[in-house]
Amino acid sequence: MRSLKGRLDLCAVNTATLGYQLPIEETVEAVARAGFGAIAPWRRELDAHSAASVGRQIRDAGLKVSGFCRSTYIPAASRAQFLENIEDNRRALEQAAELNAACFVMVAGGLPEGSRDLPAARAQLQEGIDTLLGHARKVNVPLALEPLHPMYCADRSCLSTLEQALDLCQALDPERAGMLGVAVDVYHVWWDPKLEPQIARAGHERRALAFHVCDWLVPTRDLLLDRGMMGDGVIELQRIRRCMEHSGYTGAVEVEIFSRDNWWKRAVSETLTTCAERLQSVC
Amino acid sequence: MRSLKGRLDLCAVNTATLGYQLPIEETVEAVARAGFGAIAPWRRELDAHSAASVGRQIRDAGLKVSGFCRSTYIPAASRAQFLENIEDNRRALEQAAELNAACFVMVAGGLPEGSRDLPAARAQLQEGIDTLLGHARKVNVPLALEPLHPMYCADRSCLSTLEQALDLCQALDPERAGMLGVAVDVYHVWWDPKLEPQIARAGHERRALAFHVCDWLVPTRDLLLDRGMMGDGVIELQRIRRCMEHSGYTGAVEVEIFSRDNWWKRAVSETLTTCAERLQSVC
Repeated sequence: MRSLKGRLDLCAVNTATLGYQLPIEETVEAVARAGFGAIAPWRRELDAHSAASVGRQIRDAGLKVSGFCRSTYIPAASRAQFLENIEDNRRALEQAAELNAACFVMVAGGLPEGSRDLPAARAQLQEGIDTLLGHARKVNVPLALEPLHPMYCADRSCLSTLEQALDLCQALDPERAGMLGVAVDVYHVWWDPKLEPQIARAGHERRALAFHVCDWLVPTRDLLLDRGMMGDGVIELQRIRRCMEHSGYTGAVEVEIFSRDNWWKRAVSETLTTCAERLQSVC
Repeated sequence: MRSLKGRLDLCAVNTATLGYQLPIEETVEAVARAGFGAIAPWRRELDAHSAASVGRQIRDAGLKVSGFCRSTYIPAASRAQFLENIEDNRRALEQAAELNAACFVMVAGGLPEGSRDLPAARAQLQEGIDTLLGHARKVNVPLALEPLHPMYCADRSCLSTLEQALDLCQALDPERAGMLGVAVDVYHVWWDPKLEPQIARAGHERRALAFHVCDWLVPTRDLLLDRGMMGDGVIELQRIRRCMEHSGYTGAVEVEIFSRDNWWKRAVSETLTTCAERLQSVC
């Protein structure tokens, strides 16, 4: 396993961690100044800018783009809405290309409004990814399917386990052409009894495109916005990173923390300093 | 699949659903009066009574005991505490026998205080179940391992999926002697992409000992105490019950709802009436 001591160049900051307190240009400067090697911006931050200009600014600051967040949910209550969702993701993929992102992070989406049909949502997801994969190849940005914690199955992601994500990759890209893989976020997968063999499989099948860290707090007070800083919770972070890297992962270690009542209330500089310290000590 | 219309005798009420508003003797009467065929009491309700006398009262009311809730968590920070947990579960098993319970519901427990070692917690669980299985055979009460939703992995259950539970059963009881199986609660497993094949497996391996229903609300406002009444959420209840019964399950359909801010505030009679109605219409 790589040592992260003095190697913040191997580490990335997902801008969600900073609670979107600053405009993207200031966030880029702050992340670069703190010594990180990469950044993962969100689409909403680009609204007022062209992706090309933000991409240029990020490169000028000496940063890479570890991932671009994130897809529009795919399953929809109507065919027209499904097609619109695909089209919106195509546009996002073009932005990802302009940013020179290492991957486009895909969050599946849950059950369409009014539906209880999980197999149907999953079938829509498969069709949607299949369509977008063609576009990903064209713009040369890999799709990173991110399985989300099962507690988000209803409203955010019908893709719930790493095994399910890898099965989907295998079904749509059996030749492993390099444009379809997974994002492994410890928050979503740490509980999985099959985590280690599935990470090994991701490596073997060359699917590991991103690795996200944060921590699981006890108690967790909110299903979405109460993630912990690395070291403040119960996830055995080093064991999981060791698995990732033994399986061949060489990409960034990206911090992604949604924390409405704690980290999002702190100054960006304090959060970045703490991330840097924890990455080097407990990850 | 069995029709539940006019067949409340096939249905059970887990007393947690009623928020422990009444002493157990009144709860038993209320459940019997509402027409249910079985009840699943909690250990805390027996504190002031002998299990034998409560068991007699339940039988006199014409009810069966679909399950006895629940085990003391097994993983512990010290060997002494681990052994104490096992001993406490032995005593509970004796109560389960006096109640003539169809099964003893086992909730595994999560990480011991101060630990991040999930594989070690799972090893303790396996050792604990192995020890208790001998006692279960002696008192003739099957152990029903209940995988809990992965969001409880840290503090309530390192047993997180049906597949993991069935693997554990297979490891400890390869001869399938009938004293080790699983409790399938829709709340905990509905999201699982492998749910249908694992339910089929549970049937094939003769492990299905209990089936619990409630619903997953969107949004879910509390990780523990915001379960929904059947029909108020997004779980496709009939699909899951069909799987269970196709796989050979013939036991009770038991309602178990933890709902601090809604059902626990209502009158017991109203909750029972609604359970009865929903069991016959949406389950």
